[in-house]
Amino acid sequence: MTKQRILTGITTTGTPHLGNYVGAIRPAIEASHDTNNLSFYFLADFHALIKCQAPDLVHQSTREIAATWLALGLNTDNVVFYRQSDVPEIPELCWVLTCMAAKGLMNRAHAYKAAVAANEEAGEDTDFGITMGLYSYPVLMAADILMFNAHKVPVGRDQIQHVEMARDIAARFNHHYGEIFTLPEAVVDDHVAVLQGLDGRKMSKSYGNTIPLFLEEKPLKKHINKIKTNLLEPGDPKDPDDATVFQIWQAFATPEQTQYMRDEFAAGIAWGEAKKQLHALINDQLAEARERYKMLLDDPVHVERELQKGAEKARAYSVPLLQKVREAVGIKPIR
Amino acid sequence: MTKQRILTGITTTGTPHLGNYVGAIRPAIEASHDTNNLSFYFLADFHALIKCQAPDLVHQSTREIAATWLALGLNTDNVVFYRQSDVPEIPELCWVLTCMAAKGLMNRAHAYKAAVAANEEAGEDTDFGITMGLYSYPVLMAADILMFNAHKVPVGRDQIQHVEMARDIAARFNHHYGEIFTLPEAVVDDHVAVLQGLDGRKMSKSYGNTIPLFLEEKPLKKHINKIKTNLLEPGDPKDPDDATVFQIWQAFATPEQTQYMRDEFAAGIAWGEAKKQLHALINDQLAEARERYKMLLDDPVHVERELQKGAEKARAYSVPLLQKVREAVGIKPIR
Repeated sequence: MTKQRILTGITTTGTPHLGNYVGAIRPAIEASHDTNNLSFYFLADFHALIKCQAPDLVHQSTREIAATWLALGLNTDNVVFYRQSDVPEIPELCWVLTCMAAKGLMNRAHAYKAAVAANEEAGEDTDFGITMGLYSYPVLMAADILMFNAHKVPVGRDQIQHVEMARDIAARFNHHYGEIFTLPEAVVDDHVAVLQGLDGRKMSKSYGNTIPLFLEEKPLKKHINKIKTNLLEPGDPKDPDDATVFQIWQAFATPEQTQYMRDEFAAGIAWGEAKKQLHALINDQLAEARERYKMLLDDPVHVERELQKGAEKARAYSVPLLQKVREAVGIKPIR
Repeated sequence: MTKQRILTGITTTGTPHLGNYVGAIRPAIEASHDTNNLSFYFLADFHALIKCQAPDLVHQSTREIAATWLALGLNTDNVVFYRQSDVPEIPELCWVLTCMAAKGLMNRAHAYKAAVAANEEAGEDTDFGITMGLYSYPVLMAADILMFNAHKVPVGRDQIQHVEMARDIAARFNHHYGEIFTLPEAVVDDHVAVLQGLDGRKMSKSYGNTIPLFLEEKPLKKHINKIKTNLLEPGDPKDPDDATVFQIWQAFATPEQTQYMRDEFAAGIAWGEAKKQLHALINDQLAEARERYKMLLDDPVHVERELQKGAEKARAYSVPLLQKVREAVGIKPIR
């Protein structure tokens, strides 16, 4: 039986925080050890160009995020871990799919519609400040997915639409040119932990309430101390299910540890003490990876070598598939 | 002094006719012998995918058009003659430029606006049947031009806008990332001969009034005999400037030959005789190339070798330029 192919894109802007770790990175890294599937993970630097016109930031993010995933133990022998821009077949497939994608499909994309709505509200032209990058982004994402004939694409709810568009474009291509592409499916895991941030809302860069993943021990402590609590005194029983400190604890704890902290809350643990224990828990779990992360940042050659290894593995799939695509559309040597 | 770079795209759909030859191919081939410029000619097969979803036709056209230009004496030692799809840097640059191109710019493209107008007239949705290929086509054309830092792009009046869009995208890129691209200029030659077709209108595939370029001697005669004339008898003086036969004659004749035919018209040459002489004139000029054309169609290996030679020359420009572009936007090895 062919292995199920699972494809995950990693955006290369910004510094990963605990919310990213718990919600996306940790489960993906666990899955990377599963030999029943064939998993593709890629650093989406072509996508980064849509939003980020700061070259140093694009480069620095790629470096940090590659180091992060490697430090956390991504099993690169078992999965294909590559940088999108190392696979020149992707932008070429993107053009071929551009010719197959209905413009009307792009008009319905959430991100584009949100930008249009914002313009209309501001009394601007509909397309004010909108680049073709933002508008065409679902076609590039289709190329990312179809290039490796991925069966499954784990995404958040807001990304389901993009996988459906890839499916639509693939179906249209197959209809015109013959069955070449696997129709991908979005996989939404509703059990993925959504972590609360310092202020109790969802941890998110846009709320400025994050705890960066690889903070050193002391700054990590400082951040954890800022987690919002209430005015209950030591000795007062506290409701764990209403406490961000407990919610974050839970995301890192074993069931036993979770039960232990639940009991402590009932027994009136002081907020300061709970935060101290939370810090110890997280720090213990991340300390080793943090050291590896620092070593990897100091060893760009090693990181680059890993990415090149990944690119080679990726191209073992992308080169022959693009070859088939070219033949199908009529682009081939004269003979 | 650096040579002026001149870039010409050749669409790879349809069979070339005498109008294409006189208006575009012949002057371009003459220019290919000029060593003062550095000229790029490319078979635009990625563009062909926008309009043509028939793989055999895309392939066959590429083959015929490459053979046509070679048969007519394109100087491939002096120019860079390549197939667009042999330069993988082009689709990649296309994506980078996509991120720099304003969507509003595409909204103003003539071809897109015409398609929208047709939809509105038919009472359809604005974007009915419009693909992202049609819509994004100016970005790919910008990539074609900027990839080789072309100074000049000879175009028909209807294509000026596309060169201006390429200029606009290049300026925006340079502004954001530093001076990388030459701003291209459209060159419109108003002296280019526009040939009349069989019915006296402009010779054009869409009017179905063409004379294919490499017709054999006999079918060529048949076609020429179909050229529209009036009812004047042999011996009646005829107005050359009102006669398609004369207009086509002029496009192939020396000044002396033109004067000779002008005199013959005044002296009342019979239409049949004028056509007979026109046939001889064209046939003489094209017979040798037609033989070469047939030989080239029978020798795909040779044609492919020429294209590979061209691809190698083209990539000597495109690879280092894309490298600069990548560095500029922040896509580079980790180091």
